[in-house]
Amino acid sequence: MNEFDLIRRYFAGRGVRRADVPLGIGDDAALLAPPAGQTLATTVDTLHSGVHFAADIPPADLGHKALAVNLSDLAAMGAEPAWATLALSLPEADEAWLGAFADGFFALAERFGVQLVGGDTTRGPLSVAVQVQGFVPADAALRRSGARSGDHVFVTGHLGDAGAGLAIEQGRLALSGPPAAALLARLHRPTPRIGAGLALRGLASAAIDVSDGLAQDLGHILAASGVGAVLEADALPLSDALLASGIERPWRLAAAAGDDYELCFTAPADAAPGVADALDCPVTRIGHITAEPGLRWRDTAGQVVEPPPRGWDHFARDEA
Amino acid sequence: MNEFDLIRRYFAGRGVRRADVPLGIGDDAALLAPPAGQTLATTVDTLHSGVHFAADIPPADLGHKALAVNLSDLAAMGAEPAWATLALSLPEADEAWLGAFADGFFALAERFGVQLVGGDTTRGPLSVAVQVQGFVPADAALRRSGARSGDHVFVTGHLGDAGAGLAIEQGRLALSGPPAAALLARLHRPTPRIGAGLALRGLASAAIDVSDGLAQDLGHILAASGVGAVLEADALPLSDALLASGIERPWRLAAAAGDDYELCFTAPADAAPGVADALDCPVTRIGHITAEPGLRWRDTAGQVVEPPPRGWDHFARDEA
Repeated sequence: MNEFDLIRRYFAGRGVRRADVPLGIGDDAALLAPPAGQTLATTVDTLHSGVHFAADIPPADLGHKALAVNLSDLAAMGAEPAWATLALSLPEADEAWLGAFADGFFALAERFGVQLVGGDTTRGPLSVAVQVQGFVPADAALRRSGARSGDHVFVTGHLGDAGAGLAIEQGRLALSGPPAAALLARLHRPTPRIGAGLALRGLASAAIDVSDGLAQDLGHILAASGVGAVLEADALPLSDALLASGIERPWRLAAAAGDDYELCFTAPADAAPGVADALDCPVTRIGHITAEPGLRWRDTAGQVVEPPPRGWDHFARDEA
Repeated sequence: MNEFDLIRRYFAGRGVRRADVPLGIGDDAALLAPPAGQTLATTVDTLHSGVHFAADIPPADLGHKALAVNLSDLAAMGAEPAWATLALSLPEADEAWLGAFADGFFALAERFGVQLVGGDTTRGPLSVAVQVQGFVPADAALRRSGARSGDHVFVTGHLGDAGAGLAIEQGRLALSGPPAAALLARLHRPTPRIGAGLALRGLASAAIDVSDGLAQDLGHILAASGVGAVLEADALPLSDALLASGIERPWRLAAAAGDDYELCFTAPADAAPGVADALDCPVTRIGHITAEPGLRWRDTAGQVVEPPPRGWDHFARDEA
């Protein structure tokens, strides 16, 4: 079997077929017909074996996650997903592996109406680079730079689950049964908050997805907006599974660990009461934006608490 | 230095700034404003250390080539380049290496008016995945499927130079001086035939870029078009440097080796006389399309000659 057979058999012509793709996989380039009056939100993220996932990850999980982390970036822009490309590097042409990888990828793609429009399969160390594009009117996009003093800070879903899942996978946390399964599923099968992102158009002043850890990712909003924030440590939304894990001070994990792919966003005080009703998922107010720069943590009594450790950083972690 | 500093310092805000990029690098996704009435030609290609280039490749050459091979795909569609994203994996945060890589990338990007709109830098084995997008009216795109019996087959520039350059680099061909430098430059600094691709709109019936070898790449046109071809071995355009290399039967190298990134295209017989005047580069007629499937090689006297070896294939080569 050669490279071209590989691509054709597992990827070409499969999954969603969109009317805005006049030419899909199989030529020198795909041809895409963008809708009038919208911008294309465009993002790329790469997952490497040994860095972003364990080499023995179930291939269906990897196919899911490689697409999910990119769709999460579209959610954070308030964009509607449309097209994806996939650059897959693998050490050998393992058909069972490829079939399962493709199953995981396409199941998620179909759920959000995404068509795979281009691909590249090469022999090399296992890695997956996915680029996705979605549609959003330019003035409705959720940028990082729109947070203002007095805005409320929110987060969708729960935080810290994927971090606890990673600790289980790496043997640093001894846990089994349903709580362990739930935490591992959050690590391996994150759900991009596409519906929430769309609902936040016109409502949120700024948004980002939590991939590197809440403290670090909110930090990007603060830097881009030229503001600071006060977060309430006790307000961070924790899942039953995380609370059952026995981890001490779980809010610190929830504040620092990445890979949850929830949305963190800000909304003006007058819009805040409508946030919960607008979203299709749980959402929690966790603090507010300040004119004073920096991120500060308080407890329920308003007392300053020790900040959580810094988030995940691929290059900094060896040097820290 | 962390991942974000890396990206910012070497890539963000650098190079061409296009009016159709309302939001570039620095948010969850870039925002791109496509022009009305055109489709987006979209392609992705990944280069891996040890597979597509030697680990000690000068980083400026790698930056150039990673973009060039993708622009070549746009050229083969007749598209005008616009936007690129870059997913770069590297084993360590080497500033000198990154600076030179970025120099090579941006020099070529500026030459063709391409803006880098998204990026991802991760620690891992050295690899570069680039996606590019360009504009082409849907009915003007050069597809692989339009070749018809009686069409003439053309190729731009010269073939086989990059293959000879690779032989020099790998120590399989002993050559030095200006011819060797010329052949190595063709391997490391290919020039995408953007101008030729644009000029071929409305003129060519089918096109492809020669990345895996003429025989294999033309084979894709033949398969997509449901036709065959007769090529004239002695007509293949060979550079002075290749002719000076002492390689025996150089046409076989020119027919089978990849990495030249010339365009191979077909044009109806009545359009063929105008091809040379329309293009901004050398172009050579090398054969014609037949109703009978398959690719056959003839010499100047019309006699059948032994076909060249099969082109480069990442997965097949170990199994051949």
